Amino acid sequence: MKQDEFSLIRQWTSRSRHQQGDGLSVGIGDDAAVFSVPAEMEVVACCDAMVETVHFLRETMNPSDIGYKAVISNISDVAAMGGLPRFALISVAVSPRWSAEDCQQIYEGIYDACEAYGVRVIGGDTVSSPASFYLSVTVLGEVEKGRALRRSAATPGQLVFVTGHLGGSAAGLDLLRRSGQTGEAALERWKPLLSFHQRPHAQVAAGRILLSSARAGALNDVSDGLASELWEIAEASSVQLRIEERKIPLAEVTRSYAEQAGVNPLHWALYGGEDYQLVGTVEEQAAGAIGERFAEQGISFSVIGRVEAGEPAVWMKSEQAWKPLVKAGFNHFGESEAGKG
Amino acid sequence: MKQDEFSLIRQWTSRSRHQQGDGLSVGIGDDAAVFSVPAEMEVVACCDAMVETVHFLRETMNPSDIGYKAVISNISDVAAMGGLPRFALISVAVSPRWSAEDCQQIYEGIYDACEAYGVRVIGGDTVSSPASFYLSVTVLGEVEKGRALRRSAATPGQLVFVTGHLGGSAAGLDLLRRSGQTGEAALERWKPLLSFHQRPHAQVAAGRILLSSARAGALNDVSDGLASELWEIAEASSVQLRIEERKIPLAEVTRSYAEQAGVNPLHWALYGGEDYQLVGTVEEQAAGAIGERFAEQGISFSVIGRVEAGEPAVWMKSEQAWKPLVKAGFNHFGESEAGKG
Repeated sequence: MKQDEFSLIRQWTSRSRHQQGDGLSVGIGDDAAVFSVPAEMEVVACCDAMVETVHFLRETMNPSDIGYKAVISNISDVAAMGGLPRFALISVAVSPRWSAEDCQQIYEGIYDACEAYGVRVIGGDTVSSPASFYLSVTVLGEVEKGRALRRSAATPGQLVFVTGHLGGSAAGLDLLRRSGQTGEAALERWKPLLSFHQRPHAQVAAGRILLSSARAGALNDVSDGLASELWEIAEASSVQLRIEERKIPLAEVTRSYAEQAGVNPLHWALYGGEDYQLVGTVEEQAAGAIGERFAEQGISFSVIGRVEAGEPAVWMKSEQAWKPLVKAGFNHFGESEAGKG
Repeated sequence: MKQDEFSLIRQWTSRSRHQQGDGLSVGIGDDAAVFSVPAEMEVVACCDAMVETVHFLRETMNPSDIGYKAVISNISDVAAMGGLPRFALISVAVSPRWSAEDCQQIYEGIYDACEAYGVRVIGGDTVSSPASFYLSVTVLGEVEKGRALRRSAATPGQLVFVTGHLGGSAAGLDLLRRSGQTGEAALERWKPLLSFHQRPHAQVAAGRILLSSARAGALNDVSDGLASELWEIAEASSVQLRIEERKIPLAEVTRSYAEQAGVNPLHWALYGGEDYQLVGTVEEQAAGAIGERFAEQGISFSVIGRVEAGEPAVWMKSEQAWKPLVKAGFNHFGESEAGKG
């Protein structure tokens, strides 16, 4: 980024120009953006960063996937509060090893993800980086006052559920990392795994159903693997969670790929992360009705266990034996794994 | 950041624990923060990034100054809309060359700046960086509905003003960069310049006075040097700005230091940036009253020129001659200067 950086940045963010209305008073291009929130709503705010070599490798994610996923990880956090995502601010530090075309594609991915979820990019900062590429996204949403779904709301007697299927993102990463040996044909054969990893969905509709049911307990999104998310709920709610291994939902393609790769797919589900499903608790008598509402939206709903009283802990039953579930999250690229602030 | 990263991050962000109330429903520690906004207010949102070697050098800024200034640059953007800053989200990528103590100090600076302006840190993401240190701050504030002060609101006949003094931050940087030759005594002698550079103020109170006066026009903050900020107003408002060189306010210490350094301090004011003063326009008949309200708050208010009709341009009168003012911003550390998205 040199002389013409301003016009380049204008070009990359051109999809944000001339957007006003629907609560947005001042969009991109002033000192700050300004928007209004309906009187019955509160603001939901979150921020997630992705750093080259720490959170992604260029070999396994193209620039538009990187932009797409950085937005999804934030939208997923809003979904995990039961909120509706509305606006995004994008902070990018561009490495000299990234071309203007790469940057254009990062922004294409960012805008594609935003538009898929009705989110508008209203600001940000694009700067140079001397070395690695860095992308930090802030997503702002709204949620009905006093109704946000917390990690701390699990109570004994509730059921533990998860949306969709788990482990698919880690399976896709495994596939990509082996593709040097296995070649293009393998990528083609297991294509759904690539989209699990590169173009994940955020479960906004599921979060909204849970919020509206008034029978939901705790909620969390699966960004760091099921084990660590369950532990967060157990600790925030001061309860024990007892889940059954055989009930953890895995996609058929994930199972098949794992079998031929000689890997236990459960490891991906528990410690892989980046599936962006929701995990939480609901009152037992409401589970059927909530599951039906999910089904109407094409979202699968799996009850995987139960909340019990006791010192915070997570137990998993496998082959008739209950064992404590190890808390750790999976570490994709060695010892530089990210922590959340 | 390895094994104990989570406990370290908890320690760095400990000043965010157990803060609720005053509109904050969910603080740090869940998937997202949740806060409410009074019915008569809108949300103001902005985001600024600072990258090591691009925006600062460790030789001229200690870690707490870096954290402090990153927050101030965002609070200044909220001030430039006439808004009140309220919350911050902090995204940090920690380089392996930064110690845990350095990181602790970055956060101390962040919290010091936030607390000085009544801003609460409600979220963020702390990750590893393979090389340079990166810090992106999002500040959220509020402003009365429909009242935000825009860059585009300058109209012919209004006066152009600036708060405080300009060029002090660039003078401080100059002092620091020469300190290898000039030594500790020079740093001590010109101490006020160091605080201009390392611990700038944001003019929140000035922005609020302007918003409440109902006679303000355009507003912008001086983050990239007066010249580029004036150009932004001229272009956004489709007007000409005609300012007088002799009216540009320089602090006495900046003048004295410039004289002994053999530099024209006007260059620092026009192209230095990071002064975080406000520049804008007001109706001529209101300028006196606004200046008095500023004086009551101890903020100096200098009329430096006038708005005229015409193709967007900025003219400056020096030694009786009017010349067009060059648009460029100053480039601190070579060709990798940042651009704003």
